[in-house]
Formats: sequence, structure tokens, C-alpha cells
Amino acid sequence: MIYWLDLIGTFVFAISGALAAWDKKMYHDIFGVSFTAFVTSIGGGTMRDLILGTRPVWVNDSRYVIAIILGVIVTILFRARFLKYRRSIFLFDTLGIGFYTVIGLQKALAFGVHPWAAVILGMISAIFGGVIRDMMVNEIPLIFSRQIYATACLAGAALYIGLRHLGVEQDWNMVASIILVITIRLTALRKGWSLPYLEKK
Amino acid sequence: MIYWLDLIGTFVFAISGALAAWDKKMYHDIFGVSFTAFVTSIGGGTMRDLILGTRPVWVNDSRYVIAIILGVIVTILFRARFLKYRRSIFLFDTLGIGFYTVIGLQKALAFGVHPWAAVILGMISAIFGGVIRDMMVNEIPLIFSRQIYATACLAGAALYIGLRHLGVEQDWNMVASIILVITIRLTALRKGWSLPYLEKK
Amino acid sequence: MIYWLDLIGTFVFAISGALAAWDKKMYHDIFGVSFTAFVTSIGGGTMRDLILGTRPVWVNDSRYVIAIILGVIVTILFRARFLKYRRSIFLFDTLGIGFYTVIGLQKALAFGVHPWAAVILGMISAIFGGVIRDMMVNEIPLIFSRQIYATACLAGAALYIGLRHLGVEQDWNMVASIILVITIRLTALRKGWSLPYLEKK
Repeated sequence: MIYWLDLIGTFVFAISGALAAWDKKMYHDIFGVSFTAFVTSIGGGTMRDLILGTRPVWVNDSRYVIAIILGVIVTILFRARFLKYRRSIFLFDTLGIGFYTVIGLQKALAFGVHPWAAVILGMISAIFGGVIRDMMVNEIPLIFSRQIYATACLAGAALYIGLRHLGVEQDWNMVASIILVITIRLTALRKGWSLPYLEKK
Repeated sequence: MIYWLDLIGTFVFAISGALAAWDKKMYHDIFGVSFTAFVTSIGGGTMRDLILGTRPVWVNDSRYVIAIILGVIVTILFRARFLKYRRSIFLFDTLGIGFYTVIGLQKALAFGVHPWAAVILGMISAIFGGVIRDMMVNEIPLIFSRQIYATACLAGAALYIGLRHLGVEQDWNMVASIILVITIRLTALRKGWSLPYLEKK
Repeated sequence: MIYWLDLIGTFVFAISGALAAWDKKMYHDIFGVSFTAFVTSIGGGTMRDLILGTRPVWVNDSRYVIAIILGVIVTILFRARFLKYRRSIFLFDTLGIGFYTVIGLQKALAFGVHPWAAVILGMISAIFGGVIRDMMVNEIPLIFSRQIYATACLAGAALYIGLRHLGVEQDWNMVASIILVITIRLTALRKGWSLPYLEKK
């Protein structure tokens, strides 16, 4: 189940990355779109695996590369439809961070990492691909906007750790935590929530 | 002793990172400030550990995460005072690069690295967190300014290698090298020193 | 042979990085030029080695650091001549991506990586140093320009995989693939080739 969720996450993140590419002029050729999709979808998991000291999954398993290529093809074929509804990017990205947070957290725990570090690694899995993407195109990463974004990942990861302590069965725990990340992100944007602003005094 | 110096370095770098966050509007919420503190304080050591092929220390030892959280709390509580004296950022950052250069160098040597590479890894430990921070917010990293910054780290690291060859006892060597980094950095800024400028001819 | 090609690649990439430094004001001091040369020439190989889970070569072998220092010295001594012919940067960079693509690909295959991932890792070896360099100075990386750049690396890497399947002897295969990368890059620039542009529709 984790394996397939991870592949689905790779696929939706590739779509979100490729779609984001169209917001930038310099991205419009096939290589630029594919490279952006690739970095967005494997950047976070690769950073997590490097920190855990294990080889990133896409290196030995060609299905991840295939999932990214499929994501790019789907985006190219249906981009008119996707871009019409601007929320498509947002939607695929939200699904992606939900899946990746929980998968990343779980992998980190399986490697015997301290639970606090595992929460951070879950968040890194989810957001780091987007951070690298934004850094490459000289944008301030989304995580520094006033939106609730990485905070949703942290909340979902914390829920997972909590339910795990309470002995909740793993599959249910995963589903619940993924839903929490997605719900917080969607609700925050709809209601315009943001974190408290720290005045300079 | 090395362990505690490392924790102190993490703490002061977290303060310097969190303070730097206030110079940017997009950083003013709690997550932005904490994330900047985190990246600034663990970025360099993490890069060093990845290159050495070992798991970064903060992953298995929660004290590092606690040191960062404490740094953020201290910054939030006392930020009015810190920001009043603009040099606070500078001071904490200077302490941080002094500690991290020598700790990073020592760790690299302990892993059997070539001394020249160890000097470079000491410098990377000290400056890379700040480089990533600056890249994320689209600033030209401080190391490319005309100030003496990374050069101070290289000088301190070279001193350590030299004294080690002469058989100086490790603790004294560490203290001397840390003091050299800090002294060069402070004096260079006070006197306006800079490296020779290479004309295009 | 691979070892010496790798050192030559390091040397020419150091020259290309140091030359690129002169295009930016903030780079003109000795440290800035050297650091840019260092990042440009070892960035790609380091990222490849981290992903493969092996220690980057420059950490244990001082010849790489020496090759970079030589590259910087050569650049400083002859920069008037290099900069006069603007194509010097371009030429050294093109040689560099040719060598690095094939060496990176070969190393990845030697580590038992899936051929598709090996092709990607060959490309990463070649282009990632330049990507980091461009990110540090807030430029959109060259790979996102409309030029044929990373695509040339991918083509050369694909040729290598193909000829290897056909049983072509390794040394000939390397030479052929390196020449293909360089030829595509040179021809594309001369003829103004670019990848198809994907309209928004």
C-alpha cells in the first residue's frame, strides 16, 4: 500500500510541477517542463533518503521515472483543461503533500529516527521538491508565504505520531493523517487562515 | 566538549537565523522564522555529514532540535532588544562560524578525509546554512560580498591543521582556531578589510 | 583513463566557473572566483555520489582540489585572453559537460543503478554544478533557457546505453558519446536549434 501511495504521490507531484512550469516563460519547452516535474516530484524524497543514508527509491526502480513521464504526458495533453481551472495546480500539490508527509514520516521511523526528526523529515519529503523548484526559478518558496502550507504537514505528521502512541493500526493512521494534512490545507485557503504575524515591536 | 560546543553553535546559529528572518517581510510568521532558524543552524553540518557519508547528528539526537527551538523562543522573547542593536545578528553569526568551522574540520579528520578536503568541509559546515538561507530568499549569499567571511573560516581551519602537525594538544588547538576565526571576522569588519579585487584587465 | 578524464573535466569546469565569475560584480575577489570554480566543478559529481551513496571523490583525493586550484590560477593569469573571446566560457563548459555526462553515467552503472536512472545521473553530473552556481547568484539556470543544453547530455547518455547494449567496447563508446554531446551542443548553438515550445493553448 505504501509503495503504491508513493507512486501516486510521484505522479500527482509531477503534474503539479509540470503545471507550475507553465506559469514561467522559461519553462515552456519540453525539457524545462519535464525537468521541473522531475525535481518537484523527487526532490523531497531524495533529500529525505540522503539524510537517512539510503539510496533514493527512483534510482533502482524505474516505475518512479515512468510515473513522472506519465505525469508530464498527462499534463501536456490536458493542460488546456488544467490551466482553465487554476486550482488544478493547487489540488494536485495538496494531494502530493498529504501523501508524501505520511510516507516520509513512516520511512524515517522505519530507519529508527527520533520521532521529532521523523516529523521534520516527513515535512521535508512533502515540501522540499517545491522549495528547490522555486529556488531554481528565483521565486520565494511558497513555504514562506503567509499561507498555511508546511504547517499542515507538521500537523498531519504530529497526528500520526500521536495515534501511533495510542496504538492505532497503521493503515487507518495513515489515512487519517493524510486526510488531516489535506483538510487543513484546503480549509486554510478557503477561510484565509494564516499563522500569527510576529511584529518587530 | 565537542558535543557541547556543537549544541551551543546550533543554538547561536538558530538565533542568527531567526533574527535574519525579521529583515524579510515574508518571514514574519512563526513557521517562517522557525524554518529559517532550522535551515541556518543545521544546513552546514548536514551537508558536511552527507558528504562524509554519515547520518546528520540532529536526526538521532533530539537535543539539537531542542537547541533550535530554544534559539527561536529566545529570539522571539528578546527580539526588540536584539534588533535594537543591529550587531546582534552579526555577533551570533560570528560565534557560530567560529564553532562550526573547527567542529566540522575535526569531524572530517576523524572520518579519515584528506586535510585539504577537511579544511573545505570545515568551511562548508560554517557557511552553508547561511548560503541555503540566502538562496531561499533570493539574496546573493554573504560569502560573495566583499567582506572577509568564509576566508576567516579557511584561515582558522588552516591554523588548526598547522598546529595539529606541530603536535599541539587538541583542546588548546580548538580554542586557538575558534578565536582566530572570530578575531579575523571582527577585525576585518571594523577595519574594512577585503580581499584583493581582480580587475578584468 | 576514466580517472584522468575526470580530472581534466574538473580542470575545465573550474576554468568555466571562474570565467563565469567575472560576469558578476560580486564575484571579483579571489575567494568568490575560487568558490565559484569549486562549486561549478564538483557540484554535479558530488550530487551524483551522494545519490549513489558513495563518498565524493574530491574528499579523499587531493588531485581534484589541485585541479581546481590550477584552473583558477590559469584563469587569473590568462583571463584577458579568455574574456576577449567570449566563447571561451562556452567552450570549456561544453568540454566539461561532455566528459562529465559519460563519466557520471558510467559510475552510476558501476553502482548497479537502473539504466534510466543512470542516464539522469549522468546528466546531473554534468549540469548540476552550473545549476547550483546559477542559483547562488540568483540567475535562472542555463538549463531553463531555450538552448539545447541538458538535452545534449541526455542524448549522449542514451547513445552510450544503446552502444553498450550492442556490445561496443567501453573506450570507443565513451569517446563516441562524449563527441556526440559536444557536437550537439556546438551545432545547436551555431544553427540556433531549440526544443519545441509548448503553447498554453
